[in-house]
Amino acid sequence: MRNERVLPAGKRAIVLLSGGLDSAVTLYIAKSKGFECFCLIFDYGQRHKREIRAAKKVAGATGCKYEVIKITLPCKGSSLLDKKINIPERANGQTGKRATKIPSTYVPGRNIIFLSFALSYAEAINARAIFIGAHAQDYSGYPDCRPEFYRAFNEVAAEGTKSGVENRDIKIEAPLINDTKARIILKGAKLNVPFRFTWSCYRGGRVPCGKCDSCYYRAKGFKEAGIDER
Amino acid sequence: MRNERVLPAGKRAIVLLSGGLDSAVTLYIAKSKGFECFCLIFDYGQRHKREIRAAKKVAGATGCKYEVIKITLPCKGSSLLDKKINIPERANGQTGKRATKIPSTYVPGRNIIFLSFALSYAEAINARAIFIGAHAQDYSGYPDCRPEFYRAFNEVAAEGTKSGVENRDIKIEAPLINDTKARIILKGAKLNVPFRFTWSCYRGGRVPCGKCDSCYYRAKGFKEAGIDER
Repeated sequence: MRNERVLPAGKRAIVLLSGGLDSAVTLYIAKSKGFECFCLIFDYGQRHKREIRAAKKVAGATGCKYEVIKITLPCKGSSLLDKKINIPERANGQTGKRATKIPSTYVPGRNIIFLSFALSYAEAINARAIFIGAHAQDYSGYPDCRPEFYRAFNEVAAEGTKSGVENRDIKIEAPLINDTKARIILKGAKLNVPFRFTWSCYRGGRVPCGKCDSCYYRAKGFKEAGIDER
Repeated sequence: MRNERVLPAGKRAIVLLSGGLDSAVTLYIAKSKGFECFCLIFDYGQRHKREIRAAKKVAGATGCKYEVIKITLPCKGSSLLDKKINIPERANGQTGKRATKIPSTYVPGRNIIFLSFALSYAEAINARAIFIGAHAQDYSGYPDCRPEFYRAFNEVAAEGTKSGVENRDIKIEAPLINDTKARIILKGAKLNVPFRFTWSCYRGGRVPCGKCDSCYYRAKGFKEAGIDER
């Protein structure tokens, strides 16, 4: 999971693509390490389809193959899925403060389900790595964005798959895990990530709302990185 | 994962129901331990729908709620999904011998995907256990039926969910993990499991083929248990 790890070149990788900035940078990192990338995009009943369109655009920009997987999560319970629950807005004075409890935008088991599909896909096409854009800022709030979770999932990949049992381990790679949004943006800028194709806002309006956590961190990240988004 | 473990009574549990004998016995065990059971049945592109019908019948017999979840696995590669790949038949003289390599009926990442959905469901309805009918005979061939895998997945549940982080762990329970088919059948008979509703054959004919691994182990199990299937 460390950034500096030298990955085997010329191998296949699965990249989870959400349409957001982090997964776009992750895809460009995977490509820069010489992986042939296969993107998985999930249609899991999000409040809006903007992020799926964004993910397709990002995959298209790299020329990588992608597949959209439609799944129905057994139950709702997250403001990202249920329009009856309000998306939390950042109150004044809260800026920059880390979340102290798990936010309502948490979707139970989401990354676990995404990684499971990626693992199944990886086994089927003989890919050796799965890239995911989870990072430090998220893991303050989301349990399935913490390094401990990725370590545990690597064990599942090693023990629960044919590849693992036959010592051809499929590794979960989270190259941004210790990065701030600003650092992710700087890394992306170096790799010429087309940020304009990505979508961060939890709401699906014509333009980003500028008020949700995701909009807040994106704007703050670009400001700190000293990069103009447009 | 040990059979003798005392589980908290009066709690909710998710039970993975395949339509086969093992998961039916598992459901009855979960019920006998005082769990309010919610069954998950997966429509994942099996060669035939008989097992889904069987799973619904088993859930119906217990009066438990069930949900059928339709998923598309990203790639094929298993004889259980791809009709172009032959289902292996048991050759004469092979009877009783354990599989020495992973059979073509292995579906990459299948149990990992099933458990991920179960975990998501469990979090959403505040269930504390997930029951799965994996057992000794299977884990000679399938990596995702081995105790090592379930130990690893328990770690994922502890580290990757809100429940786990808040110390309300969701436990994966595989109460049959060390049992032979005969012992599973004896346990099921004591709990009045309606074996006639279950379906084991890998093929989906009008009657079981009697030739695939699954038919072979079922017949052998009933014989060894000294129980007449009808």
